Formats: sequence, structure tokens, C-alpha cells
Amino acid sequence: MASLHPSTTADAGVGAVFAALADPTRRHLVEALAARPGTTATALAAGLPISRQAVAKHLKQLDEAGLVSRRRRGREAQFALETEPLAEAVAWIGAVGAEWDESLGRLRGALGSS
Amino acid sequence: MASLHPSTTADAGVGAVFAALADPTRRHLVEALAARPGTTATALAAGLPISRQAVAKHLKQLDEAGLVSRRRRGREAQFALETEPLAEAVAWIGAVGAEWDESLGRLRGALGSS
Repeated sequence: MASLHPSTTADAGVGAVFAALADPTRRHLVEALAARPGTTATALAAGLPISRQAVAKHLKQLDEAGLVSRRRRGREAQFALETEPLAEAVAWIGAVGAEWDESLGRLRGALGSS
Repeated sequence: MASLHPSTTADAGVGAVFAALADPTRRHLVEALAARPGTTATALAAGLPISRQAVAKHLKQLDEAGLVSRRRRGREAQFALETEPLAEAVAWIGAVGAEWDESLGRLRGALGSS
């Protein structure tokens, strides 16, 4: 069970992505930014039953997990999705799935089925 | 921004999966169970710097998120991975990525590039 040891930096990154996506409001923000790149916190808050300040706090957490980027355009920052951390999360899940498939293959082999 | 509204049940399920995978110990347990289906809490704890009791608590959280199944075999329960919730998490991320690609395509079209 060699992999059962303290997290690497890359592993911690994936953890931050999963933690960010665990919250329903943050998942809604990710979906909204996927559909409308360059949206402001004010515009994002307009579609939600929470304050602009609460949205800004969630955006900060998404930013810390690497899931959004911001750039200032006039008075208010515009946000966009960063897909690389999503790809890393999918890669982690994919590796687990591949390992699982391999384990099942070994078990089938040991049971003598083809 | 039609999708920015309270979570559906399916959405909550994906949230539970992301929350379960946010913790490094639980990710290690998922990796260990992918590699060795049918492992007991005692065997899982042997490879980790935490107690069997702590491992059992994490396994309970994975169970609640639908990520593991347990079956009793003799004195101690054996755990196995359940991959369906992982597939749902990948599907959610994939839908976000597809939406993002489509948005970028529209922006490129609006800018007149081919």
C-alpha cells in the first residue's frame, strides 16, 4: 500500500479543487462562469439569493483553488474560469478508475474466468 | 443565468462526492481501495499514521457519499470502491468544460476569427 502516505503538493492542489467544488454556490458560480466568461461579482450575485459580498468571498475561494482568474476592466473585476485544475481533478479520478479496473481484472484472472 | 438556482438532489450528490474527496486521508483510502478491493479498516489503518477508529470514521463519510460499499466477512467488514459517484463527478466537470469550450467558440466567432 505504497501510496498511503502524506500528500504531495500536487495532491494538495487536487484537494483544494475538490474542497472548492464541494459547495453548491461555488459550483453554481463555476457553471455561470463557464457559460459567461468575463462576468463581474455584481452580475453573478444578481442571479443568486445571496449578497454580492458573499459571492465575492466564494470567488476568492475559487481563486485560491486556481479555478478562476480575475482581471480589472473599468470599475469592477471580471472573472473567468481556469480549466487546468478541473483537468487535474479529472486526471486524479481517472487514475483511481484505472487502478480499480486493473484490480478487477486481476481478481477475475485469479478466479479463472476469461 | 438560468442555472444559478438552488441545487437539485443530483447536484447535492456530486457535492457530497467532492466534499468526501477534499480530504487527503479519504483520497488515500479511495486510492488504497482501488488498488486492493475488499480491504478491512484495520488493514487500511496499518498503512496510515492514524488510528483504526479515525480510518473507520473516514470510511463512514466515504460510505455516506456513496463512494464505498461494505460487506461483512467474518469478524471485520471489507470495503470496496463504488465508482458510479466518481463517474457523476467527472460528468459534472465534463459538462462545465463543454460549456466553457462553447463559450470560447462563441467569443471567437464574435471576434471574427475562424
